[in-house]
Amino acid sequence: MISVSVVGASGYSGTELIKLLVKHPGVQIDKLFANTSAGKKLDDVVPAFNKTLDIVLESYFVESIVKSDLIFVALPSGEAMNLVPGMLLAGKRVIDLGGDFRLQDTSLYERYYKRVHSAGTVLNQAVYGLPEWNFHQIKSANLIANPGCYPTSVLLPLAPFLKEGVIESKGISINSLSGVSGAGKSTSIDMSFAEVNESVRAYKVGVHQHLPEIRTFLKTLSGVAPSLSFVPHLLPITRGIYTTICATLSKQVDDQAILAMYEKYYGTAPFVRCSASAIPEIKNVNYTNYIDIGFRVNQEDSQIVVLSAIDNLIKGAAGQAIQNMNIMFGLNETEGLK
Amino acid sequence: MISVSVVGASGYSGTELIKLLVKHPGVQIDKLFANTSAGKKLDDVVPAFNKTLDIVLESYFVESIVKSDLIFVALPSGEAMNLVPGMLLAGKRVIDLGGDFRLQDTSLYERYYKRVHSAGTVLNQAVYGLPEWNFHQIKSANLIANPGCYPTSVLLPLAPFLKEGVIESKGISINSLSGVSGAGKSTSIDMSFAEVNESVRAYKVGVHQHLPEIRTFLKTLSGVAPSLSFVPHLLPITRGIYTTICATLSKQVDDQAILAMYEKYYGTAPFVRCSASAIPEIKNVNYTNYIDIGFRVNQEDSQIVVLSAIDNLIKGAAGQAIQNMNIMFGLNETEGLK
Amino acid sequence: MISVSVVGASGYSGTELIKLLVKHPGVQIDKLFANTSAGKKLDDVVPAFNKTLDIVLESYFVESIVKSDLIFVALPSGEAMNLVPGMLLAGKRVIDLGGDFRLQDTSLYERYYKRVHSAGTVLNQAVYGLPEWNFHQIKSANLIANPGCYPTSVLLPLAPFLKEGVIESKGISINSLSGVSGAGKSTSIDMSFAEVNESVRAYKVGVHQHLPEIRTFLKTLSGVAPSLSFVPHLLPITRGIYTTICATLSKQVDDQAILAMYEKYYGTAPFVRCSASAIPEIKNVNYTNYIDIGFRVNQEDSQIVVLSAIDNLIKGAAGQAIQNMNIMFGLNETEGLK
Amino acid sequence: MISVSVVGASGYSGTELIKLLVKHPGVQIDKLFANTSAGKKLDDVVPAFNKTLDIVLESYFVESIVKSDLIFVALPSGEAMNLVPGMLLAGKRVIDLGGDFRLQDTSLYERYYKRVHSAGTVLNQAVYGLPEWNFHQIKSANLIANPGCYPTSVLLPLAPFLKEGVIESKGISINSLSGVSGAGKSTSIDMSFAEVNESVRAYKVGVHQHLPEIRTFLKTLSGVAPSLSFVPHLLPITRGIYTTICATLSKQVDDQAILAMYEKYYGTAPFVRCSASAIPEIKNVNYTNYIDIGFRVNQEDSQIVVLSAIDNLIKGAAGQAIQNMNIMFGLNETEGLK
Repeated sequence: MISVSVVGASGYSGTELIKLLVKHPGVQIDKLFANTSAGKKLDDVVPAFNKTLDIVLESYFVESIVKSDLIFVALPSGEAMNLVPGMLLAGKRVIDLGGDFRLQDTSLYERYYKRVHSAGTVLNQAVYGLPEWNFHQIKSANLIANPGCYPTSVLLPLAPFLKEGVIESKGISINSLSGVSGAGKSTSIDMSFAEVNESVRAYKVGVHQHLPEIRTFLKTLSGVAPSLSFVPHLLPITRGIYTTICATLSKQVDDQAILAMYEKYYGTAPFVRCSASAIPEIKNVNYTNYIDIGFRVNQEDSQIVVLSAIDNLIKGAAGQAIQNMNIMFGLNETEGLK
Repeated sequence: MISVSVVGASGYSGTELIKLLVKHPGVQIDKLFANTSAGKKLDDVVPAFNKTLDIVLESYFVESIVKSDLIFVALPSGEAMNLVPGMLLAGKRVIDLGGDFRLQDTSLYERYYKRVHSAGTVLNQAVYGLPEWNFHQIKSANLIANPGCYPTSVLLPLAPFLKEGVIESKGISINSLSGVSGAGKSTSIDMSFAEVNESVRAYKVGVHQHLPEIRTFLKTLSGVAPSLSFVPHLLPITRGIYTTICATLSKQVDDQAILAMYEKYYGTAPFVRCSASAIPEIKNVNYTNYIDIGFRVNQEDSQIVVLSAIDNLIKGAAGQAIQNMNIMFGLNETEGLK
Repeated sequence: MISVSVVGASGYSGTELIKLLVKHPGVQIDKLFANTSAGKKLDDVVPAFNKTLDIVLESYFVESIVKSDLIFVALPSGEAMNLVPGMLLAGKRVIDLGGDFRLQDTSLYERYYKRVHSAGTVLNQAVYGLPEWNFHQIKSANLIANPGCYPTSVLLPLAPFLKEGVIESKGISINSLSGVSGAGKSTSIDMSFAEVNESVRAYKVGVHQHLPEIRTFLKTLSGVAPSLSFVPHLLPITRGIYTTICATLSKQVDDQAILAMYEKYYGTAPFVRCSASAIPEIKNVNYTNYIDIGFRVNQEDSQIVVLSAIDNLIKGAAGQAIQNMNIMFGLNETEGLK
Repeated sequence: MISVSVVGASGYSGTELIKLLVKHPGVQIDKLFANTSAGKKLDDVVPAFNKTLDIVLESYFVESIVKSDLIFVALPSGEAMNLVPGMLLAGKRVIDLGGDFRLQDTSLYERYYKRVHSAGTVLNQAVYGLPEWNFHQIKSANLIANPGCYPTSVLLPLAPFLKEGVIESKGISINSLSGVSGAGKSTSIDMSFAEVNESVRAYKVGVHQHLPEIRTFLKTLSGVAPSLSFVPHLLPITRGIYTTICATLSKQVDDQAILAMYEKYYGTAPFVRCSASAIPEIKNVNYTNYIDIGFRVNQEDSQIVVLSAIDNLIKGAAGQAIQNMNIMFGLNETEGLK
């Protein structure tokens, strides 16, 4: 049994993580931390846990001592970097679901996250936790930077195309549609039901903090630095991300060639589902750790459209974190996730 | 007073049209036709009209004689072409809200609409009813092909960029998000609440019937034939279209230059609202005839993102039809629409 | 032309009111007040007004002098009572859309609104603005207490039954379902999209501030003091209230008798629509000033179910306020509302 | 390992059931039947099963021979009664999720289900599968009539009040709000997204087929025959039922007495959660087998409001069926459900 604790237990990602951990046969929950709700019972803060998990939330401080083998950090970006170095010093393995350890380049971090990075010294220990590409590094990592929800939905379908030189690296357009839970628990009027419902809006066009993550890891994974537009949109749904990528083909390909390419990269990946016929839909992946990938070739205009769907809270956050844990601790990658 | 009749009164576009006509100070409703509900009172079919409009729906046949000056046809594509030639012969002016008279090239029509065009002889009378570009032709037209909802949301923001040579004509990506009413009243399981809610899906990628309309009129309006991807998506909202266009800049431009360009084309257009700062949102245009346009320049990658929002049933259908009627009959373009 | 000003222009009721006033042929908007947004242009705060109404929001103080004939107050309850006495002193007529002047009994106000009433001296000038019952008093009133959204949806269908003695006055159950806009613009996590969507919850059971209003005016209008349960619920929709009332019949009635009863009370009321067959639906009344009323008699158990639907922002707030204005100023009751 | 088959695998209840069966550690799926999709792979019909369950759907006939120990029947009411007698004859145990075996009185069935009952001879073998009340009968049953979703949400909170004589048996009002999946996969325009979204409607008031089930089992469980109103409403959510019951108290009770009463009936029930403070919310029970129960006492008017929330597809259908299976086969009642 792996003993785990969660710091940031009351947010959407933290809650989803705990739901998965409770059902995981190889895990024992040690402690749950949530500073703003410390002292309260978990099920008073999140009533869904009533009769399921009877535990009191605690405060987590820099000096806190936790017995667990593994600590999940599900805090807003900017908070994790203050706590994680101490956890590593104490010999704990850590999976951070936020953005603090994804970018090795602190100047990029500072430009897009609008704050100074205070934990630069441990950044080089961080492994980007995209299991389909970094399995072996994840296995031995002490610090996992769990990928962002948008980057997960972009990197998996797109990186093989760039690496194989099937598309032009210039002028790639990435349109992503996200459910509201991606923004975390929010008191902003902009996120209130009456403002979000029956509407759609693009936001943070060109300045979203996931943009440098997408650029960086497209290059790291494929060896090619693309020029691209990334346009996130907010939709009136609670969960799910839908990503539509348009690119120019640099060679003639047909459906079979693309399926073969995906087979090469994801043939043994348990959570990647590709199809030349089916169009992904959020409802087919919600509440699962799958990513569904589809595509349409337009030979006439030498264009390709690639589509993906994930549950932002599972494959885009808590589920992928569990997948990383399974790999780190030598369990079957799908344990607790199917 | 303009005397008008509506053929196809019980669909979503027809219903929306009647709501606007009832409030229009210069219009008198003559007859309403809806074959499947003929003989029933309008407010039995659409209870919202109770106490507002007391009229019995009738059947419309090829030989029907209607006294009105103007007939609105709000039928599914493929039905209008059987009726409109007779209306024109009888000396009526016609506004068709469907797709039968938008494409002059019948082979294109047949490829995308999957049926033979039976009214080729009157096609050359049809004027594409996009008031911001075709005002003078509309004024004297006897047959208006009211633009499709997607094309309206694409042509208005995009055509000036192509005409002015600000963007490359290759590799334009157009992602559109539509509410469900765009599909009309549907008995398909795919359109049932439980299948659409909390999900998103792309559909008809590369084969949507609005694709040739977008291609054709981009070229007609701008003089440039673009290569593009058009990806329509279905969203869990009732009304509204949100379109996100990504293109490669062919020259350096800043926000002021783009605003000046839009001012040149739409400075006097009463229903086009452009902004360099505000991002369009569907909720700001729903239940109105406005199109909101925004944009973001990405100098670093020489990319531009252009965004638009309309109400698919108003600016994308019934409202634009009223706007066309106003122009045809010499009324103020905004009469009954503000 | 009636010259009007609005205090509280940026909330949902205020915004809806301005939309209606802009279209009203007999009204001229003088000033709009919104303290938190004072100095900003209306269309910067509510982009939907772009190109429709070009006006700068101002601050309203106790000493503010306004030239208008009529002032609409659309402030949260508790704020209006500080301003309205001064308006009345200055000779203005006032329609208050909030709860401050609905209850003549200040102890009731204090119990349910949880604050002391500071304007008791003008309370006796207030007329409860339910046009279908208080037409003549409204005509000459200087201060209208515009009814709450829930009470409007309850009083109109229920009061005739009590007044005519058709139902028992004991054990009446009133279940109301409300869209989220009823709570106003909210920064509460409880009102955020992700918390409201795909869920339902009852709230303030037995302690809602509209409960004493319902009790008081049922008694005032019918002469009978009922015992009742009132259970408000929050639904994942933006607009609309649906009210379901269950009561015990005290005499045998059939559909015709009930229709005749409603005809007696509402035969000339332009915005009340009753039916023995049709079941009300929110979509039939949204964006209108109508209330739809339906019912089902259960002779076997001597029970009756009465159903109503309104748009909470129109008939439940701004539309009813316009209706009151029309009556106060001798216009046709439906002016600007159909 | 229990070997099970499912007849009616492609509907919402059937799909949900299969999802639960796949995760159940004590179950082996034998065959899946779905006549309209026979010959297709399950994951072609329900893409969510891609990579999870690889099985071909088959047709089920009266003569079909199935090796399983247990057959789940998830067919529309009216179809099960033609198949179940044969299954029982073949010595299979059966859990029917539809309505065909819930009412022992075939005249009641015929009145509300509008068809003749063809399997009266096996009706007396049917046990009503409400585990919290009928545990011991379920244990040895060969035929389980799995309760309807509305009755589950009503009987559990209400029956103890009647049995203990805490409320009057007359004038009980039951208002239930249901998500759309309760109606099954539907091609009706009434269930299309654009018709359901942003609206609410009551339906089948006084004639719903769950009404006699509620009446019958309230009497069976409590010994008291109540008079009541039952008003089902359709909401724009996919899953979940919210039930609000108003009744007149027949004796003075306080919160503690009510909690003690529930403790008496449900103290050991693993899926019933009662609270005197928390108000049930659908989001707290969705995707779980819990029923949440809350209440508010109104001493002043001698009224009580009782509230409950369930997931209609889990506790209201598939989850409760699994719970019944666990009991029938001597497993822990919560196996595969927590």
